[in-house]
Amino acid sequence: MSAGRARLRELGIRLGRLAPGPLNAITDVAGVQVGHATITDGSARTGVTAILPRSGGVFMDRVAAGAFILNGAGEMSGLIQVMEWGLLETPILLTNTHSVGVASRGMVEHLVGRYPGVGTVHDVIIPVVGECDDSFLNDITASHVTLEHVEAALAAASGGAVAEGSVGGGTGMVAFDLKSGIGTSSRRVPTSAGEFTLGVLVMSNLGRLEDLRVDGFPVGEALGPRFREQERRRSLYGSIIAVLATDAPLSAHQLQRLCKRAALGMGRVGSYAAHGSGEIAVAFSTTNRRERGNEALVEHLAAFSDRGIDAFYQATIECTEEAILNALCMAAPMTSARGVYVPALPLEGVQAVMTRYGRCG
Amino acid sequence: MSAGRARLRELGIRLGRLAPGPLNAITDVAGVQVGHATITDGSARTGVTAILPRSGGVFMDRVAAGAFILNGAGEMSGLIQVMEWGLLETPILLTNTHSVGVASRGMVEHLVGRYPGVGTVHDVIIPVVGECDDSFLNDITASHVTLEHVEAALAAASGGAVAEGSVGGGTGMVAFDLKSGIGTSSRRVPTSAGEFTLGVLVMSNLGRLEDLRVDGFPVGEALGPRFREQERRRSLYGSIIAVLATDAPLSAHQLQRLCKRAALGMGRVGSYAAHGSGEIAVAFSTTNRRERGNEALVEHLAAFSDRGIDAFYQATIECTEEAILNALCMAAPMTSARGVYVPALPLEGVQAVMTRYGRCG
Amino acid sequence: MSAGRARLRELGIRLGRLAPGPLNAITDVAGVQVGHATITDGSARTGVTAILPRSGGVFMDRVAAGAFILNGAGEMSGLIQVMEWGLLETPILLTNTHSVGVASRGMVEHLVGRYPGVGTVHDVIIPVVGECDDSFLNDITASHVTLEHVEAALAAASGGAVAEGSVGGGTGMVAFDLKSGIGTSSRRVPTSAGEFTLGVLVMSNLGRLEDLRVDGFPVGEALGPRFREQERRRSLYGSIIAVLATDAPLSAHQLQRLCKRAALGMGRVGSYAAHGSGEIAVAFSTTNRRERGNEALVEHLAAFSDRGIDAFYQATIECTEEAILNALCMAAPMTSARGVYVPALPLEGVQAVMTRYGRCG
Amino acid sequence: MSAGRARLRELGIRLGRLAPGPLNAITDVAGVQVGHATITDGSARTGVTAILPRSGGVFMDRVAAGAFILNGAGEMSGLIQVMEWGLLETPILLTNTHSVGVASRGMVEHLVGRYPGVGTVHDVIIPVVGECDDSFLNDITASHVTLEHVEAALAAASGGAVAEGSVGGGTGMVAFDLKSGIGTSSRRVPTSAGEFTLGVLVMSNLGRLEDLRVDGFPVGEALGPRFREQERRRSLYGSIIAVLATDAPLSAHQLQRLCKRAALGMGRVGSYAAHGSGEIAVAFSTTNRRERGNEALVEHLAAFSDRGIDAFYQATIECTEEAILNALCMAAPMTSARGVYVPALPLEGVQAVMTRYGRCG
Repeated sequence: MSAGRARLRELGIRLGRLAPGPLNAITDVAGVQVGHATITDGSARTGVTAILPRSGGVFMDRVAAGAFILNGAGEMSGLIQVMEWGLLETPILLTNTHSVGVASRGMVEHLVGRYPGVGTVHDVIIPVVGECDDSFLNDITASHVTLEHVEAALAAASGGAVAEGSVGGGTGMVAFDLKSGIGTSSRRVPTSAGEFTLGVLVMSNLGRLEDLRVDGFPVGEALGPRFREQERRRSLYGSIIAVLATDAPLSAHQLQRLCKRAALGMGRVGSYAAHGSGEIAVAFSTTNRRERGNEALVEHLAAFSDRGIDAFYQATIECTEEAILNALCMAAPMTSARGVYVPALPLEGVQAVMTRYGRCG
Repeated sequence: MSAGRARLRELGIRLGRLAPGPLNAITDVAGVQVGHATITDGSARTGVTAILPRSGGVFMDRVAAGAFILNGAGEMSGLIQVMEWGLLETPILLTNTHSVGVASRGMVEHLVGRYPGVGTVHDVIIPVVGECDDSFLNDITASHVTLEHVEAALAAASGGAVAEGSVGGGTGMVAFDLKSGIGTSSRRVPTSAGEFTLGVLVMSNLGRLEDLRVDGFPVGEALGPRFREQERRRSLYGSIIAVLATDAPLSAHQLQRLCKRAALGMGRVGSYAAHGSGEIAVAFSTTNRRERGNEALVEHLAAFSDRGIDAFYQATIECTEEAILNALCMAAPMTSARGVYVPALPLEGVQAVMTRYGRCG
Repeated sequence: MSAGRARLRELGIRLGRLAPGPLNAITDVAGVQVGHATITDGSARTGVTAILPRSGGVFMDRVAAGAFILNGAGEMSGLIQVMEWGLLETPILLTNTHSVGVASRGMVEHLVGRYPGVGTVHDVIIPVVGECDDSFLNDITASHVTLEHVEAALAAASGGAVAEGSVGGGTGMVAFDLKSGIGTSSRRVPTSAGEFTLGVLVMSNLGRLEDLRVDGFPVGEALGPRFREQERRRSLYGSIIAVLATDAPLSAHQLQRLCKRAALGMGRVGSYAAHGSGEIAVAFSTTNRRERGNEALVEHLAAFSDRGIDAFYQATIECTEEAILNALCMAAPMTSARGVYVPALPLEGVQAVMTRYGRCG
Repeated sequence: MSAGRARLRELGIRLGRLAPGPLNAITDVAGVQVGHATITDGSARTGVTAILPRSGGVFMDRVAAGAFILNGAGEMSGLIQVMEWGLLETPILLTNTHSVGVASRGMVEHLVGRYPGVGTVHDVIIPVVGECDDSFLNDITASHVTLEHVEAALAAASGGAVAEGSVGGGTGMVAFDLKSGIGTSSRRVPTSAGEFTLGVLVMSNLGRLEDLRVDGFPVGEALGPRFREQERRRSLYGSIIAVLATDAPLSAHQLQRLCKRAALGMGRVGSYAAHGSGEIAVAFSTTNRRERGNEALVEHLAAFSDRGIDAFYQATIECTEEAILNALCMAAPMTSARGVYVPALPLEGVQAVMTRYGRCG
């Protein structure tokens, strides 16, 4: 997203064994769309990211969903219903902690505008909004995020390449003491029932530099000395939200289990789910759907066997790791209105370390 | 709250074996305060209720808390963190489903106004907001609830008697096909370590008339014929939020278990936790506290033994039942702007049925 | 199962609105079989009950399953895997607390004997064994239950009427201060997709007489004076295990939710899930199956819509209540080897109370 | 435990930042004892490992405990009660899947023998028994483990160095396609309230060679070619049980959270919690205790602040990784009675790879 920035693979670093999809993004899952509204005026370093599970709208044609909370020191509103019903009924919004309310309200207005039957013929709306705390760079007590930004993020949503780094909800995020934000990755999952795709998008705001691992290698430790003079984030209060999408017909229960493996991916990059770091994952299947208003009591649904689930676990871990790293790789340095500077991950430094380990190029 | 309405005990009906506190309200737990903002202009039949765990403010002196979700077809934002940390850090707000966002935003503004260190020396704020769907009587797609209403509910909070029925967040609620809203009840809990108090406040919006039980007796079934001609709510989409408070030094884990017993109380009044009915309980202890900024790593806390917990379970069930019934007893009939009429529970009818069963007077 | 004992309905008391199946037993669900081994020699007042989900064997053709733990002061071994995979792979055994180990071992030997491929071509076996504490009447520290009893319970399993009261695992159980044991009940569940059946079997060992409710009516309170001179169980340490079966094609997630409603049924009969009372439910669907060794990665399964689930919730609550009451109604008084006497529920007393309330005959 | 084997640190490989305790074993936590019974006669390659939380016995002086199930494709019987009460009341036993029953029975007999009041003045016993499937090397369908072995493991329990590798419950275990078994590790945790110790013991039976990581480095991938000709385990059906002990006064809730971090440690070594791999952790605090029979309803307990918990999270991850690796390092190759050979981790190979990465010596 910024001059001089590049994705992990563009650095010559290939993480994992499965091949990514054409965009190496959550939008490789057919129908998934992502949009950002980025706010950097005045004291703002924040924004909104919208993930739309289906191009045709998820409200009338809901998708199977599951979630897992590795560490609940954070918030994803609406998750109670997602976990009870095993369904996602709205797009997912990501923003800063104090803007969960306005994002929630914005989603209600968005859907009420599109579906006049809400609250009469249709159920009311419980939006799904995830947050991280960007108060290190953003003036979070100001009300920078407005209803218009929510609508803008939704309106901007499209398939295709996903902007990463300091964009949308990720604008002000910091991870591993470095500028972070939004990152994404995908994997093709070959199975005996055909090839499926799994994609992950993260808003990443967790961890300490010394713990950062790239494909297991201690890159953060190696790069640490470069930052000795710099201001370091002193706290482990952070958080990460991971959104997983797949076109495999996974059940709500299977999707919940994928989310547990996203947690393992977070751990591999260096998270130990610190006390103040909310680590939450939500997953949906674009092909396991429930049409609103369908009167049939018994339907015949495609069900994916647990026998084949391991490949999706592997894909989830690989995508989660790479998405977190892409968020770092693509984010340029940022200075807050108060003058706090957060450096970027030095890409040539990563290449140097990984080259030394024989894992670059 | 209305002419001609009375609380269950005022009808001569005593439910349970434990004695209520002086107010028979959640405010019998010392320090707990409740405030309402009620909105009935135009198409509005809605509002906000605020429950403050401590008169001195809960943000700086957080209280142990736990929660249980009997049926997750609803929302209580902020619950993820409450359950992870076992702490409640903000007042609790109750409102309609579509106003969770504005209530969340209002709580952030309220606390930012009071605690300038939020987002810098203090953590950011994750508000706790519970909802039920009042769209049967309220025009939920209009934005009736504003930031001012949230602030008004918080400003109105006080100890003392709690307004019940069609007030605050309960204004437009319907339960058992009858006008419902806010209800509360309390119990004194005698133990070998002294007397404690437990109180419950509900925003009740669940159930069908035919299932309504008063102290186990099938009052709804008996009263059903009176309403034969009336419009009945056709759906079981409802919900209930229960807030439990106690001055016993219960742990987060014990408070979570109390919430499970609140679910049993809901069941006794006639809930079977219908698919569309979100049934959520949250509990806190006013005496098991964690001061913000306390640097001590090891503290000596009072811990209540599980050996004595059964009396609290009993109190929880009794209070939950009576609070749900008080919400019905105290709510007057209401007509929506669209002309939909919801009758009140006929108090003399309840007395007649319970008298027949030897349980009145 | 004893002279002079009768089931609740035989007393003229009809609980709930749905009609029972022909046997009013869990065996009304086609294929479900129940067998008991009862041990009353010497100091023994104990035994084993086996519930077989499928007459053709569940090991090779596993059934969808879910569970809920209202209060975990008890044990159902094997539940971790049932809840993870959403599958039940073995028959369910019920016995006393100290005999979980031998029951577990007995199930392994039983299945190893039938399926020589266990541990080589097939997975190893994790038996599902639920327990209650019968030490009030049974000499639980003696090793009364042997591998032979486990095999005998399994060999005795059949469809048809289920013996209730002091039989099998329920032999020494006490509930509401009265002799209890095994009880069962069923309901026909009419839906727009045809009629289904739901059945519940309980091993019931919970509660105090004063809390006992029959269809909500305070029968225990009314009968209390009869027992003034008798020895009362002083503790609330008890437990209940409920096993739910249905022929509707419910998912693991839906079955887990049924189990939550079984908890509400327990509450209605008078449980408040006392600290020492483990209250655990497990449910399975005989028609949502996963054949072992099926190589297909994507199958087309019948899925039951949540739209129709409420009727199953109602059926679950009704069956659970009636099964607990049937266990009391069918159990004769018992004296332990140490001379401890536990009286039976006085059936004519129940009839008298319910007649007074207009609910008998 | 075998000629030519050595622990990870003896190879010159130091994983993590915290210093181990003097034994680098779970027994560094004062009072914790470990005993093994190893069975290798005939077709047996199995055994029992006992972990005693307190040298004085845990039955009368129970310890706070928590658990987490990363993947429930396994069994730890008794966990339901541990999680409900937040207490561990018995030693923990580890054995093969089919011997959970006999281990459970053996624990009952052991405690009944020591505490004649069991079942009368004391509660009945719900043993905690974890399992992994050793059927690759062990004839699991034979009843090799007997009550005597359970008693022998308990009798052998002592503080001091812990035998690792193919001993006790770990005798027949295989991890990452290599001989594995029991492993342990500990960390000193410096805090402002003094130094505490955390220890982990695993029975490790999970993973594929290609996924094995040592301190993040892809050692399994590097060593893979050595085994090209060898028989590989084809399945990911495995499992791991982790037991965590600390002398910090952590609450049940905090201990449960430690267990989540143990899962992250498993992930770092290469687990992706494969479908058939049960991954379960249980943790206890030796200093947060509840004496049986204590009549006080309100006690003053030391409570450790969440502010200091991160150091324990880090220690947990480090110990879990190192314990899993110690199990591999200390296990010699093994051949089953059927002639199946499982090679050991080649220690000089590990050293060579880690030396190349600059992490050895």
